Amino acid sequence: MSSTSMAEPEILDRLRAVLPPAELVTDPDVMASYSRDHAAVCAAGQPVAVVLARSVETVATTLRLASATRTPVVTRGAGTGLSGGANALNGGIVLSLAKMNAITALDVDARLATVEPGVLNATLDAAAREHGLRYAPDPASRDISTIGGNVATNAGGACCVKYGVTGDHVAALTAVLADGTTIHTGSRTVKNVAGLDLNRLLIGSEGTLAVIVGVTVRLLPVRPIAGTMVAFFDDLRAAGRAIVDLQAAGSLSTLEVMDRTTVRAVEAMKHMDLDTDAAAMLLAQAEMGPGADDGTATAVMVAAEKTCTGHGASFVASTTDEDEGRMFMAARTAALPALEQLGAWLLDDVAVGVHQIPDLLARCAEIAEERGVTVASFGHAGDGNLHPTIVYDPADLSQRDAATEAFDDVLHAALAMGGTLTGEHGIGQLKQSYLEGMVGEREVSLMRGVKAAFDPLGILNPGRGF
Amino acid sequence: MSSTSMAEPEILDRLRAVLPPAELVTDPDVMASYSRDHAAVCAAGQPVAVVLARSVETVATTLRLASATRTPVVTRGAGTGLSGGANALNGGIVLSLAKMNAITALDVDARLATVEPGVLNATLDAAAREHGLRYAPDPASRDISTIGGNVATNAGGACCVKYGVTGDHVAALTAVLADGTTIHTGSRTVKNVAGLDLNRLLIGSEGTLAVIVGVTVRLLPVRPIAGTMVAFFDDLRAAGRAIVDLQAAGSLSTLEVMDRTTVRAVEAMKHMDLDTDAAAMLLAQAEMGPGADDGTATAVMVAAEKTCTGHGASFVASTTDEDEGRMFMAARTAALPALEQLGAWLLDDVAVGVHQIPDLLARCAEIAEERGVTVASFGHAGDGNLHPTIVYDPADLSQRDAATEAFDDVLHAALAMGGTLTGEHGIGQLKQSYLEGMVGEREVSLMRGVKAAFDPLGILNPGRGF
Repeated sequence: MSSTSMAEPEILDRLRAVLPPAELVTDPDVMASYSRDHAAVCAAGQPVAVVLARSVETVATTLRLASATRTPVVTRGAGTGLSGGANALNGGIVLSLAKMNAITALDVDARLATVEPGVLNATLDAAAREHGLRYAPDPASRDISTIGGNVATNAGGACCVKYGVTGDHVAALTAVLADGTTIHTGSRTVKNVAGLDLNRLLIGSEGTLAVIVGVTVRLLPVRPIAGTMVAFFDDLRAAGRAIVDLQAAGSLSTLEVMDRTTVRAVEAMKHMDLDTDAAAMLLAQAEMGPGADDGTATAVMVAAEKTCTGHGASFVASTTDEDEGRMFMAARTAALPALEQLGAWLLDDVAVGVHQIPDLLARCAEIAEERGVTVASFGHAGDGNLHPTIVYDPADLSQRDAATEAFDDVLHAALAMGGTLTGEHGIGQLKQSYLEGMVGEREVSLMRGVKAAFDPLGILNPGRGF
Repeated sequence: MSSTSMAEPEILDRLRAVLPPAELVTDPDVMASYSRDHAAVCAAGQPVAVVLARSVETVATTLRLASATRTPVVTRGAGTGLSGGANALNGGIVLSLAKMNAITALDVDARLATVEPGVLNATLDAAAREHGLRYAPDPASRDISTIGGNVATNAGGACCVKYGVTGDHVAALTAVLADGTTIHTGSRTVKNVAGLDLNRLLIGSEGTLAVIVGVTVRLLPVRPIAGTMVAFFDDLRAAGRAIVDLQAAGSLSTLEVMDRTTVRAVEAMKHMDLDTDAAAMLLAQAEMGPGADDGTATAVMVAAEKTCTGHGASFVASTTDEDEGRMFMAARTAALPALEQLGAWLLDDVAVGVHQIPDLLARCAEIAEERGVTVASFGHAGDGNLHPTIVYDPADLSQRDAATEAFDDVLHAALAMGGTLTGEHGIGQLKQSYLEGMVGEREVSLMRGVKAAFDPLGILNPGRGF
């Protein structure tokens, strides 16, 4: 590619000639702030320019120019990704969609909203709630991450245990191809089997196939929280077994776990009076069903408490008060920020079958022991999706190596259980070297073939995703 | 392709040389029985051979030979499709997977089953029920259609209103590419974002990308039916408005509609004492939720009855008895067989937003009037998915033309509402000429590009799907 690519000054001149000045950033300091996502360990390159697109036209113009000059384009929303998938490439264009942040339409009868990609997840949800509706997908970053980024990574969250991932709520997409033409995928209908499912193909494609410029999502009626339960266990595997039984009962809208290391970090930061001696803490919520009354809600929480007690919980409590419930849940949301206080971190995102959660929790604790590093395990236990996070001192080279080895061990432990490298954060840069081992050589070559159909010059986020 | 393809006797000789005799059918009468699906109006060609595969090896051998000889391959399950997608092609191979019908594994802890593609939907469900689990997707053909076919068409059914379509229950697939190599897609985990979603791409691809030889599906716990409601309306639009409100309440596991023409056909065949003067009949079911008691179940049915009465229903009744409920539902299952008694038929499969169902029902009645043909509307109303079926006398040429025009009108009515050409039956042959108009020229060319990545010689069900 380098043989056909242009000199950087020439690309910049051509961008200046075609884009509104307000949509082009070349100041190095400002560009730096658009050059990385939240994966601290992944390298970021030096872009030639940042395009702060405010319209589909700017996106198309940028992509046409990038195609003409064979310039790589890294598309980004808010840059909250955790796999380095939105990090700048040397000599490339960073295409930020953060300023394309209008809610284009909110059709209450159809229960559909159409938004530009830069709309924040929480903003969309708040707009829906004004009409008694909600946007269900809730990544922990929801207050600061964009819908476009959520779609590009097929983001998960705590609600997935009941409502599924982002992709399950995306009805239709508008996207711009590398050559600047606009395509539409999906349908406003609940069911649609007209042709190959290009909509699902774009979801989770990490900016490698097309630039998503419009998202039509399904909205759901708001359901009040029936109750929130917190439980502590002295034994990690016992907590895991409680998770399996709680999930099998199928009545919960949230089922999260935090191990001792995570609880201690959160307690140190938030002073919530958590039991820092317990091996693990579980958090569970249930929503009111349609037609369900308070009696049913209470029954679900009583059953959940009983399950925990049956598995030897040292402490169990629940509340039907929504505000109190939110306070409990805030402990979980604080997990990563609290761990960040302890040192450098390597966040993993493995998933296994829910029934294998006791084994995965135990294995992560063993790995910490074996490698002599801190591994904090927390995550969406009800989906079998954990974020074992290795915390280490970046100044200590042997710690750094041990951290990398522990990260590796966690991935291989999940794969050995038939699990996945990434439940909700994507491959990005971080996990590229592991992908072929999981999905197979031929399967990766098919992915490349699919990319070639969308992006024959290979300018869209090259080298990321697969 | 014809210039490079071989003479038929030579292909047959080579098939004979490599396949077990029991897996190769050349008798013209037997071949004829494998040469069509249930779309009576679609043309079927004369195959050179039918391969009755009993192993992945036979599938791979057949595909390698087909690639070497540039012979088109039409893969089929039970042939219950309604779009002509499994009809034989002249000089091609029909690859039947009906004999690959083993349940390979049923993992109760993981709530996953792995099956060969020829396993019948109902057989898989029955096997799961022995363990208190179920396979939710329930196309009307479930007793006679295969899981492989269900996946290839992303089949729907009555349960979709609560549980989604086939694709929502498929965790992983094993498939053989046109060149004979085996690939694996998806993951046994609930969440997985490792690479492009090839699993979703194969689902609904109508045999154009690869031959699915193994399917891992998710199983769910069995929920007892809490109640079944039947309601009759004198006004079609009023029935439509009741559907909108019933669906908005979100408590139902089934919500089906039959118009007067459909009710009369069913009554003529089954003598169930249905109200043949009513404009429409609704059928609804609700399941017990986890932790829900009889009181809640009753409350849901009472609320549904009240909704129907509020919209002027002429008759409403419900039952909590499961057997009685099944009897009611049998009226809906009989719709197509009953209509088949009246003459030739053209079955449509359009979908719109649920809130547009009153308009679509009314428009279908208008089209019948305008074209002077019988249009029987029934379907999965709660998903906005209707099967307006044009019944006509095939011997009467003007009726035939009018039927085709009415079919066309129904499709265009759905498209004009922002709907889809096909909610659950697929494009097949039947709707090819309409696809580009719905999804766009560039989008269809992307689909062709994706196909080329999987099947560069274009031997897999060429000319079908897109």
